[in-house]
Formats: sequence, structure tokens, C-alpha cells
Amino acid sequence: LSVLGRRRANMPQHAENGGSSLGRVLTLDSMNPNVKRVEYAVRGPIVTRAVQLEKELKEGAKKPFTEVIRANIGDAQAMGQKPITFLRQVLALCTYPELLEDDKFPEDAKQRARRILQACGGQSIGAYSASQGIECIRQDVSRYIERRDGGIASNPDNIYLTTGASDAIVTILKLLVAGQGSTRTGVLISIPQYPLYSATLADLGAVQVNYYLNEDNCWSLDIAEWKRAVTEARQHCNPRVLCIIIPGNPTGQVQSRQRIEDVIRFAKEERLFLMADEVYQDNVYKDNTFHSFKKVLFEMGPEYSSTVELASFHSTSKCYMGECGFRGGYMEVINLDPGVKAQLTKLVSVRLCAPVPGQALLDLVVNPPQPDEPSHATFMKERTAVLANLATKAKLTEEAFNAVPGIKCNPVQGAMYTFPQITLPQKAIDKAKEAGQEADMYYCMRLLEEEGICLVPGSGFGQRAGTFHFRMTILPPTEKLKIVLEKISNFHVRFTKEFSE
Amino acid sequence: LSVLGRRRANMPQHAENGGSSLGRVLTLDSMNPNVKRVEYAVRGPIVTRAVQLEKELKEGAKKPFTEVIRANIGDAQAMGQKPITFLRQVLALCTYPELLEDDKFPEDAKQRARRILQACGGQSIGAYSASQGIECIRQDVSRYIERRDGGIASNPDNIYLTTGASDAIVTILKLLVAGQGSTRTGVLISIPQYPLYSATLADLGAVQVNYYLNEDNCWSLDIAEWKRAVTEARQHCNPRVLCIIIPGNPTGQVQSRQRIEDVIRFAKEERLFLMADEVYQDNVYKDNTFHSFKKVLFEMGPEYSSTVELASFHSTSKCYMGECGFRGGYMEVINLDPGVKAQLTKLVSVRLCAPVPGQALLDLVVNPPQPDEPSHATFMKERTAVLANLATKAKLTEEAFNAVPGIKCNPVQGAMYTFPQITLPQKAIDKAKEAGQEADMYYCMRLLEEEGICLVPGSGFGQRAGTFHFRMTILPPTEKLKIVLEKISNFHVRFTKEFSE
Repeated sequence: LSVLGRRRANMPQHAENGGSSLGRVLTLDSMNPNVKRVEYAVRGPIVTRAVQLEKELKEGAKKPFTEVIRANIGDAQAMGQKPITFLRQVLALCTYPELLEDDKFPEDAKQRARRILQACGGQSIGAYSASQGIECIRQDVSRYIERRDGGIASNPDNIYLTTGASDAIVTILKLLVAGQGSTRTGVLISIPQYPLYSATLADLGAVQVNYYLNEDNCWSLDIAEWKRAVTEARQHCNPRVLCIIIPGNPTGQVQSRQRIEDVIRFAKEERLFLMADEVYQDNVYKDNTFHSFKKVLFEMGPEYSSTVELASFHSTSKCYMGECGFRGGYMEVINLDPGVKAQLTKLVSVRLCAPVPGQALLDLVVNPPQPDEPSHATFMKERTAVLANLATKAKLTEEAFNAVPGIKCNPVQGAMYTFPQITLPQKAIDKAKEAGQEADMYYCMRLLEEEGICLVPGSGFGQRAGTFHFRMTILPPTEKLKIVLEKISNFHVRFTKEFSE
Repeated sequence: LSVLGRRRANMPQHAENGGSSLGRVLTLDSMNPNVKRVEYAVRGPIVTRAVQLEKELKEGAKKPFTEVIRANIGDAQAMGQKPITFLRQVLALCTYPELLEDDKFPEDAKQRARRILQACGGQSIGAYSASQGIECIRQDVSRYIERRDGGIASNPDNIYLTTGASDAIVTILKLLVAGQGSTRTGVLISIPQYPLYSATLADLGAVQVNYYLNEDNCWSLDIAEWKRAVTEARQHCNPRVLCIIIPGNPTGQVQSRQRIEDVIRFAKEERLFLMADEVYQDNVYKDNTFHSFKKVLFEMGPEYSSTVELASFHSTSKCYMGECGFRGGYMEVINLDPGVKAQLTKLVSVRLCAPVPGQALLDLVVNPPQPDEPSHATFMKERTAVLANLATKAKLTEEAFNAVPGIKCNPVQGAMYTFPQITLPQKAIDKAKEAGQEADMYYCMRLLEEEGICLVPGSGFGQRAGTFHFRMTILPPTEKLKIVLEKISNFHVRFTKEFSE
């Protein structure tokens, strides 16, 4: 203590680095500046206010609405979607293996549970798995990909099981970030984009390079626009990565096979690492056909399939499963340099492993009940109902919004979102500006306060300057969705009128 | 296409940035250099080889052993520890709520499950939770902390539910990293350390500042040594963080209350943010008393409790639960700047939420069956058996190693590891050097090949130059642990003899 006491009195040299000795070590001024630049609109101020409103309602406050409807996030079960029975049966068996003796569980569920438990350390989902994921589940993922892609081979060594797709996307981006100043890695992302991408790039200190989707052509991809983006980016950074989300989030479009070929060709020409976010691969309502990047890449022949580097992401959170809370997912890496792959495996090992219940859940998604198994009929019935229902709601949403003057909505071809453009009166834009707000944030905040509906403003995803949008999920149950659509429509008319007078 | 074609022929300016157009975008040369510096010995080359050996055995290869025993990692259930019945019953009920109608489940398990489901979106653990974690579980965590700390208040707003403790530790370190060159954040970590810390610091590009634990005094903390470390560090970085693991990993010591006071006083004097890794808080075999940093901090009076910034970490993976696969955990933050706290909440929201099954599991750990509830007796019996068994194995391990000439082992006072010092003949050290290996890596690799026992070399955790150690978990079942200890002892004698001739 005397040593410390003396030092304190005589040698306060640390104050030079740390500022006032009365203040905190960690302040807004002294914290990681990259973290400060992170933004994540899907859970931003609108959601904070929604949570507050829910509390106020619970405490008996009077509002112009009786419940807050959260259409801000793709959280199917929170919106009332029931879990798929087979998935939950197997997970319960894995969690509490005493149930394997229970006659109420079907034999195929038990068989799946036994197989998963066999592959776990100590035959328990409470053990860590291998960092890359449980081996037999990675094999099942590969077989799933092979079936999906018409037999194109998939190697389980290229599969990593992850904590949702978010974890995987962050990990791959982290590998790719290098250089300083004008050699810093640039990452092309679509605008509008899912803000995980912009948030991660801010966190990693990478350069975000925007390419705009063509709203007038159903949010399609546009080669000339990529060209512009990459050419401009080369003036100030080293663009090395191209991120694509298909089906689109927040825009709900499904790109044609031809466009995917264009993407791959462009990536090869421009030497870009391709990141394909395909978490909505079962959510295709247009023609019901999903073209995976992997499949198109291999169909383009060895000139492409042996050179273009691709990471493709999938998740248990979306599609018919909607099991967001389990944080399950996988990625497949193609043409990854073997040395880099070893680095990737090392990197994921630091956090030991993805949650094992999520891995088990993923196994059921990629290895569902077969026609000769007892759970098949129920499973198919439940799965089909969810997807058919989403297709109906996609159509319903498009039609309802396009009937409102000042709302223009592309067809929801896939995923579970709509991203309509809203025309806002200049006076509303000015009013928002006065308050230091984006006009669509002002609009969405007013909607929340007046109708209890929680959306995300387009500015949280990015949009062409001067245009305004919001993202809404189509997940509420049909009857509730109809109410939501009507409330938004009425609000829009009212809002427009208020600021047009 | 023609645009692309022309550009390719005439303007290959991107080759300047990207190197040969034939090579990959992402290579060892062009990847994130920080990731290359990451090392994580607990799952390093030794474990890779162990997995290989297991495969070879399965395929019928003849080895000097019939199974590989993995004593490299604190993975209780992989070593045969049975899950606690109550925890798994409640999780099964949450997973498949149809079981709430089943008479085989006790009423208190059902009541817990109902309460957790009520707090979930759509009453399903398949929904995302709030990013900070489910509110009623955060409240339960606070009450647990209050009971543990003799009534010192805990605010649920200061609790974050996380993906194991690893996730929380990485997140807090990320907030703290700032500056460049001589102002770059320095982080004091013990040597030996748990390599999550060194790996994360490499990843974040922070400066690792080593302080050595005093092996001769049972791995105790030493003020003069911190003083040395921090003073030297100030020459080249800005030391702002002090990380402590109590009970110790890999060293198994429990620090006295007095030492924890010293740590807190030192942190205040030197303006260091305190990170207290307390994931082994139930694993205390010496005097059976755990002194939390939070409690000691508040008992030191407002001069400390209102100023010293502290983040404390806990996990469902260790203690009596050993539920590693669920990746559950929490952190409590004390005296965090409110602006920084908002940044922390924003940052964790980017990955949406920690796995909900892990959150549910944590709720049971902090809110176990009470004496008047039907599951109490079984729960206490199972819990006590695990902890008593570990205490026995701690003693057994210490005694067995200290009986071997050339192995010197401090008492295992807590956690689930021993980190004995091994004396290696100079010839062995030279032989390893020739092979470009650390001597303890060579030793552990030989042990694995000859006896099938997988340990982690001390060099993976850090140790004073010229000393050698290994880390072994005490988790194998007693009968197997006895075999492990005998095999290591025999091997050590044989190895020493081989290189002393």
C-alpha cells in the first residue's frame, strides 16, 4: 500500500493517458470509436419506445390502441406462429432423454434424438461440440445441400455450424478485413440492406460500399450500378467482398437465375469474395423456385466453380421453422484457401462452439421426416400451412398498400418483409428536419404513438436520397395483418392530409 | 457483359490492389492480420491430433491405449457427469409445452416452465428475446446476486444475458479498445491465463499486458508484480483494464478476501476497469467460501463502490451444472457510464439475442428449487454429489502429482483444473527446440501418442520463461481419473529417464 500511496502522490503520469482521476475509465469519449458508429435500426429507438408503450398499457395507461403490434422484426413465433411439432419433439427428447421411454413420442422422433445424442460428448447436448459443429450434423447439412442443388457435391468439411446466420456473417467479414487507408477492405452491400451488414462493417472498421437495388424494376440487381459502385470505391479503398441477400431483406425480391449468373461473373471479373445470405431460401412465393448461388456457380462450369470464392449462409430462424430463439445456422464455404480455412476453424474455436440445441434443431431442418416415417404427414401439413399462409399474406400486403395513394409497393416475392415507398408531404419532411429526425423515422414514430404499430423506417436500411420507406414483416396472423394494413392505410391518409393543409 | 469485357481488357487497375487475377481474393497474405495472431491452445494441435487418434482407433488401428481421454477442457458432461434432473425437466417442458399436461413432471418444474414461457414472445422459446435478455430472468439473476452477496442490491438493468461467458468477455473488451500506438488500450491479464483473453486481445488489436501469478505462493496475486506490469506497460500503451479469474483457470487457486480488496484498491489507484471472471463461483473446495468482487467492492465503502467500474461474468457451463452446450451466461456491470451502457445495449442488439434455451437454463441456476418444493431434495442431492466429488478429485490429483519426482502441484482450491509444474531434462528441451516445438508441447504430444491422454501444454496459457506446465481437468470420473494420474506419472518417469541417459 505504501508503494501505491507514494506513487499516487508523486507520479501521476497515468493521468496523461486517462484524463481526470475522478472520472470513469470507460466513457463515450474513451470507448471504442468503431462501436459508436454501429447502428442497428431493427432494434433501434422505435423498438425501445414500443417496449415502453407496452409497459404503460400494462400499467393501465389510456392509449388510442389496446396493444402494440410489433411488425418490425422477422420473429414468427412472437407473432403467433406455432412451432413445428416434430422439431420440438426431437429437441425435448434430446433435452430430457428419459422421454425416450415415453410411448407418446413417435419412433422417428426418437430415432433422430438417439442419433444426435450418440454424436454428442457423453451423449448429452450439455457437452461442448467440436468448434466447427457436430460432425454427423455437418454431414446431414451437406446431403441437404446436395438434394437442394440437384446433386452437386457438398463436402462436410466446408460446413460450419453457427450461432444463427449473424454469427457466421460476422466471422467471414472479420477474416476479410485488412489494410489501412486506401488499401482498407471495401465491402459491397445492397441499398436497402439488412443492417447487420452496415453494423458489422462499422464495428470492424471496414469500408461500406453501397450499390443500389433498382426499385422501379422490383428491386433487381443492376450490373451498371455495381460497376459504378466498385469503380468509385477503388478511388479510396480495396473492394474485395460482394454481399447479396436473396430472397431480399428488407425488400422481399427474388432475383432471376440470370441475375445470379451476372453476380457470379461480376465477382470473378472484379475479384470479389461472394457472401450469399440465403436464410430465406424456403420463403419463395414467386414461381416457388430458389436458385442457390452454389448451384448456379457449379452450373456455370469449372472456370467459375473452381475459382470464385463463396460463403453461403442459412439459419433455423426463418423459412417455415421460425425458431429464432435457438440461434441455429450454418455456412458453406467454397474455394476457400486451405490456410485461411484453418484460420477460420481456429477463430471459431475461441468461442468453443455454437449452441448445441440450435445445432440439433438444424439437423432436423436438413433431415426432416421422410414419406415412410410416422411424423411425415403432420410435418408436411404444418410446413405447407406456414408457407402457403405467408404466400397469401405477401399478396394481401402488396394489394392493400398499392390501394393507398402515396404508398407504392413492389410484389413480395420472397422472405417475409415488404418495403413500400411512401410519399411524404414537404411540410412533414421539414417538420422532421426541425426535430433533427429522418422524415420516415418521424412518420414511423407517429404511427407507433397513434396506432400502436411498430415498423422500421427505411432510413435504417438505406434508401436513395429523397425517397422514404418503411419495412414491415408480413408475419402477423392474417386477421391481425388485415387490421395492421388498414391502420397503416388510414394513418397514411391522415398524415398526408395533416401536412398538406 | 460487353462493359465488363472491355474493362477487363483495358483497365486492369484492380490487379494493383488484389495481386494476380489467377489467385484467390482471400489468402493468408491478404486476410485480417489480427486473426492470424489469435491462438487458442485449449483446442489447438493437441486436440486435432486427439480427434485423429480417436478416428484411427475406431477404424481398428492398434495403439498403446484403447481410448483417448480428453482432459484438456472443462467439459463435465463429456466426461460422464449427468445433467441435473430439474434443469432438464424444465427445459424439456419449455421446449415441448404439451408435456405440461404430463403427470410425470413435478409441479415446481411446470411452474418454472410456465413462468419462463409467459415471458417469451408468443410464449415460445423459439422467439427472439430482448437483446439484453428476458426481463424476468434478469430479475431472477439480480435476486441471486443479492442472496449471494448478503443483500447488497443488484439492479436487473445492469444484467445482460449472454452466449456463455466468452461472449460477454469479448463484448466488454471490445468496448474498451481504443487509441493507436502508445495510446492503444492495454489489458492486464494474469499469466498463466485462460487463452480466451489473449485470443480476444489479438483479435481486437489491443495490447496484452502480462502480470505473473506467484506459483510459489499457490498462484497468489502480488501487488508489486502488478505495479511492475502497469509501470512497464505505460511506456508503450494505455493500460485501462485489469482481468482477474477467480477461482483461477488454469491454475485452480482461490484468492483470499484481502487479495480481492488489494485488486480493487489497485484498480482505483491506477484507474483500471475491472473484469472479474467468476464462472467457477460454485467450484470452491477450500473453506467453501466464494468472495465475489461485487460484494467486496461494496463492503469497502462508497469511495470504492461508487467509482470502480466492474463487469462480472458467470456461466451455466461450469460449477455443478456443467451445461456447456447450452451457451448460457450473464454479466453484471457496475458503475458503467450510462452513455456507454446504451452503446453496450446497442452493440448486443446487432446479434439480436443470446440463445433462449440457455437463458431459460440460467434462470433455473439462479432460481433453483426451494426447500418447500417437490424437486428440492433431488436437486440438492445431485448438486452436492457433483461438488463433493470434485472436491475429492481435487485432493486426489494434488496428492498423486506431488508423489511424482519432477511434478510439483499447488492445491486445487477451486475451479476444475490443475496446472502442475513439470521438470524436463535439458535433452528433452533441446530435442523439442530442434523440432521447433515448445518443450511442454513436445511432452504433451508424446503423452497423447503413448498413453492416449489429451492435456494442454502450459505454453498455451503462458508461464515464466524456463518453466513448464500442463493443464489437466479433474473432471474424469474418479476411477478413470486414478488411471489418468497413474498413466501420467508413469509417463513422466519414463520420459525423464529417456532424456537423462
